[in-house]
Parts: sequence; C-alpha cells; structure tokens
Amino acid sequence: MKLVEVLHMNGGIGDISYANNSLVQRKAILMTKPIIEQAMRDLYCSLLPKNLCIADLGCSSGANTFLVVSELTKTIEKERKKHGFQSPEFHYLFNDLPSNDFNTIFQSLGEFEHDLRKQFGEGFGPCFFSGVSGSFYTRLFSSKILHFVHSSYSVHWLSQVPNLIEKNKGNIYMSSTSPPSVIKSYYKQYEKDFSIFLKYRSEELMKGGKMVLTFLGRESEDPSSKEGCYIWELLAMALNELVIEGLIEEEKVDSFNIPNYTASPAEVKYLVDKEGSFTINKLETTRVHWNYASNTNNENIYNNGGYNLSRAIRAVAEPLLVSQFDPKLMDLVFQKYEEIVSDCMSKEKTEFINVTVSMTRKN
Amino acid sequence: MKLVEVLHMNGGIGDISYANNSLVQRKAILMTKPIIEQAMRDLYCSLLPKNLCIADLGCSSGANTFLVVSELTKTIEKERKKHGFQSPEFHYLFNDLPSNDFNTIFQSLGEFEHDLRKQFGEGFGPCFFSGVSGSFYTRLFSSKILHFVHSSYSVHWLSQVPNLIEKNKGNIYMSSTSPPSVIKSYYKQYEKDFSIFLKYRSEELMKGGKMVLTFLGRESEDPSSKEGCYIWELLAMALNELVIEGLIEEEKVDSFNIPNYTASPAEVKYLVDKEGSFTINKLETTRVHWNYASNTNNENIYNNGGYNLSRAIRAVAEPLLVSQFDPKLMDLVFQKYEEIVSDCMSKEKTEFINVTVSMTRKN
Repeated sequence: MKLVEVLHMNGGIGDISYANNSLVQRKAILMTKPIIEQAMRDLYCSLLPKNLCIADLGCSSGANTFLVVSELTKTIEKERKKHGFQSPEFHYLFNDLPSNDFNTIFQSLGEFEHDLRKQFGEGFGPCFFSGVSGSFYTRLFSSKILHFVHSSYSVHWLSQVPNLIEKNKGNIYMSSTSPPSVIKSYYKQYEKDFSIFLKYRSEELMKGGKMVLTFLGRESEDPSSKEGCYIWELLAMALNELVIEGLIEEEKVDSFNIPNYTASPAEVKYLVDKEGSFTINKLETTRVHWNYASNTNNENIYNNGGYNLSRAIRAVAEPLLVSQFDPKLMDLVFQKYEEIVSDCMSKEKTEFINVTVSMTRKN
Repeated sequence: MKLVEVLHMNGGIGDISYANNSLVQRKAILMTKPIIEQAMRDLYCSLLPKNLCIADLGCSSGANTFLVVSELTKTIEKERKKHGFQSPEFHYLFNDLPSNDFNTIFQSLGEFEHDLRKQFGEGFGPCFFSGVSGSFYTRLFSSKILHFVHSSYSVHWLSQVPNLIEKNKGNIYMSSTSPPSVIKSYYKQYEKDFSIFLKYRSEELMKGGKMVLTFLGRESEDPSSKEGCYIWELLAMALNELVIEGLIEEEKVDSFNIPNYTASPAEVKYLVDKEGSFTINKLETTRVHWNYASNTNNENIYNNGGYNLSRAIRAVAEPLLVSQFDPKLMDLVFQKYEEIVSDCMSKEKTEFINVTVSMTRKN
C-alpha cells in the first residue's frame, strides 16, 4: 500500500463525505484560534511583509479549508488597519495529498474571494491562491518563500504504516495489549517523520517565519494510554466482532495498522529541540468532547453522539479501511462502531486531546 | 452565460476528450519550440535565477500540459550544465479556468517528476508545482514573482462574447458576411482583453522576465478573411444545416458567437507597443495543416483528416455549444461538421495560422 495514494478524506459533499462530517476538526480550529492569531500578529508586526505567503498543510476540501484562511486574513486586516498600513498581497497555498479534491477547492474560490472583498472592503488584498499537491513529508515549496505555516488535524498522520517486527494481534493501532516492539516502531516512525517535517518546513519558511500545528495527541506519557488511541481501539473492537461473525479474516485485522501517531507535548518538545530549527513559543493541549462531531447548536445536548462520531471517523478512515477490507462491509463496520462508541459515550468522559505547538523559525 | 464557468476543454480521457484530441495544439508547441527555447536561454543567462518561476497559462490537462514543462526544463538543464552552474529550484505554476481538471494534473505529477529526475539525474532540481485557477484576464500571481510566462493556444480566447449591436446572422464568428459593426465589436473586445492581459502579466513578471505566447491568428489584415475564421465558418454551416432540418431554431444560431479572436501580427505589435510594458523580441507566424489533428506517424498520409479535425474542434467547442444548443444534438452537429470539413480538406489547402510572440518585460 502506497500511503500517499490511499490516504485522503472521503470526497464529495454526500452523507459520508468529510465535508459534511468534519465538525470535530472545525471545533479544533476554533479552539486554537487565539494561538493562531497571536502567532500571525507577531509575525506581521515583526516582518511587515508586503507579500504575505501562507501555507495550509492538509487543507482537505470543504468549509474547514476556507475557515483557516478566513480567520488568518481577518487577523491581518485588523492589525494592519490598526497601524494604518497598506494591505499586503495575500498568497495562500493549499496543500494536501494528490488524491485530495482540489477541483472543488478551485471551483469555490471565486465565491470565497468575493466574500472576503465584501467583508474587508476597499484597500484589501489582492489575494492569490494556489493548490500544491504532495506529502508534507517531502519538500513542497521553494526555499524561504513562506511566512506562515498552519496545519490542523494532519500531522498525526504518519508517512507510512510503521514496519512492525511483531504482529499487533487484535489491534489496529498502539494499545495496552500491543507488544512493546509495536509501540517502539510507532514512535520510531513518528520521530523520523516529524523530524523530516520540521527540516523541510525550516527550509521553506523564511527566518522569523511562524508555524502553528494542531494534531491529535495525548497528555499522558504512555503512548498506549487510552487518551491517544481510544478511537482506534473501539474501531478494532468493531472489526474483531466481524471476525467472530466470520465476515473478516482474523489475519486481515492483525496485519492492518493505522498510520497515526498521537504524540505528547513532551515528545513534541524533545523532537523540536533536537531538530534545532525552531523555537517553541507555545505548546499546549486542549480537549474536544466526542460530541462535537454532532451538528447541534446547543453544545450541551449530546444527542446521537455515537452516530455522528462514527460518521466523522468513517469520513477519515474509510479510504484506508477499503484498501484492506471488503468495501461492501463498511456499512456494517460503522454500524457496529456506532453501537460501541455510543455505549462508551454514555458511560465515560470521551474526549479528543489536541496538541497545539506554535513555533518560530530561528534566525 | 458567464464565460469563465463555461469555457473549458472536454475533460477526462475518453473518445471526445481534449486529452485525446489535442494533436494540433501539440504540433504548435513543437513547432514553436525554437522560439521558446531561445527566450528561456536568454532569460536564464541574463538573470541566472536560483529559484526559477515559470507559469503556463491555459495549461488544460493531458500530455500537452507536461510537454511544455518538460521542454523548458530540458533547455535550462542543458544551459546550466554547459556553464557548470548548480541547478536552480524550478517552480512551475499551472493555470487554467476553475472548471479545468486540476485533479488529473495533480495525480499525474508524481510520475512526471519521477521521469524528470530519471532524465536529468543527480543534481537536478528540486522541482515544485502549483495549480492556480482563474482567468488570465485577472491578476493571477503575486507581484514580480514570475521569470517566464508561456501560453499556447489560449490567448485567442476572449474574456467574453463581444457585445454586438447588430445580429451576426447565420454566423457564429467574424465572417465575410458579418456586418462591419460585428467585426468592430470583436476587435474592440480583443483590444481590451489583450491590453489587460499584458498589463497584469507586466505586474507579475519581474524586470527582464520573458513571455512567449502562441495563439491562433492570421497573416491577412482582414479580420474576416478565411485564414482566421474558416474553422468556425464551417461549424456555422453545420449548425445552419440543422436549422434547415428544423432541429435548431434559426434565432439560436444567430445569437451564438464564439468568444475567439484570431489576431494578425500587426495587431499584436500595435497593442504590445501601445500597452508599453514589453519589448517584442520575435513575432512570427507558422502554419499547421488541419491534418495534424490526425494521430498518424506518417505526416504525409492524410487519412481521416475530417474525422480527426472534427473531434479536435469538438473537444474544444462542445462545452460552449451545449450552453446554447441541445446537448443531444452534438453527435449530429459534429457528424455534419466532419462531412463539411472532409469535403474542404479534399479541395483546398486547409491550415491553421499560429502567431507566436516572444517578449521581454522592460526594465
């Protein structure tokens, strides 16, 4: 399996699409807004760029793609008006893997730009947009052209499934029942990937440039703690139920592993310091209840949480799952998953932990 | 009709797709290669850019998209090796209207880049690719970032159908039977569009940057001469036959006009000089026989020319035609067209005239 060809969110705008099932990701962006804004303000006031170049890594397609750009633009517009400066030229670079639906982004840009102009009025922009396809574990942009890098809910994806020397029996991710060698392999892959990620971004960002990353992580220092891997542990349970029912071969579950790593802030700090190109300005965790997957205006009403979370995870994981399992089984897998998840949510406090790190490219 | 939403080549890779019916365009690129190469060599040797930024306007999707990039890269690689210089970073910007199939481009980039690396070996690159959607009659890129602009078979498209004060009865383009006011309106639209095109490119190109454009044109100074408009005159004949047969309303043909302008070298020179940002280095015409639409290795065997040319024009014009006429009639329209075209090709010397202009952004 070549991960760059398989890994993408469910496309289109249908029932099981990412575009319609990405409220957790939206919530994460909104929760980390103050950190993003602070970084952007600091960057703008220190470099005063005339041509501001901003990359969003793992942009996907849908409302979240434009949410970040919109918030960043708002921050700059406010700041430059406060100081009476002319508007910079905005250059937004949308990155995702080649299988992402860039056509949909391009076809929505006209309206989006029109809305920006309406919102900010005379003297704003111009704004330029580019699509850049490729893995962020490779070089994506010319040297030193970027002022700002943003990425939300993407850097927890590894460049590949770790090479495991032992079977991760009954599991599809790190878990308390995984052999220590599995945990170690996952960490090694993360260490390699995140270090390369930092190195390449340090080549693309200019001196003083900023980068804010938010990804799924954990607070515990135990990589197999529930915090980081519960969502996949429950998916393994659903798959294992289908093994018992004879619909999936046991071997297929044993050899399937999710290319994720949910890092702790300490691990992030260690790797950033070790790589050496960035200073950490802020490193913190936030929590998003699984219920945020539900599209409800009242955040306290936790209806149908299992159904919505199941769809949210399906939008993210289905392309990976169908590379290993019969696509016809997906409805059944996520029906089981919904039951398991609903049960958990009624008994426990179920939360995603986001790690956000805000960094500056050293001089 | 909003032209930016309607105008695009037939997508996909099927029988009537642009990707499979673009041999004339390919021939034009290959014929004008010496001019493109010369401009690129001159640019490289005068500016010696470390980060070479090249835009292809109206890139479409398919083999032609990569042909230009491949040829330009070859030229630079040859030149820099001759002088013993390090490879620049290549940054290619692919532009077309939002309805273009960018996903197909992005999904082919991996293999294309792999081929480039294989061809040029160690020390080549890195290469970066971006997609930029939008009309080239608007600003597309940040100020002064481009070294080189290329466009082939695109700038003959106008930004809109000219506003005609008189009916262009029985015609769908300028023709010898069009009223003088129609010819004038077409020219006025072209004058406005091409001037804006030059202005915006002059803002995006750095001083000393180069631009090579090839587009359908004519040698005659008469805008309604056969040279420039024969292909559309014959399409009007096909449509008018369906009017006679009662399948298309006469009014629909009378009010349909192709947003093209086939300029003469003198008109191009006049407008470039008038706009004032560019020096013309070369301005010439070349001829491509209609038979180049045929995919034959022996260029002298003119088999099936009508069939292939009809498909080539269909790939280009169908999206426009179905905005005015019943899509179900398209097979019939192009069957008629094929007959008419075949008949012409057997009796006359039928050629496209390409105008190529190579320019430098003034200091």
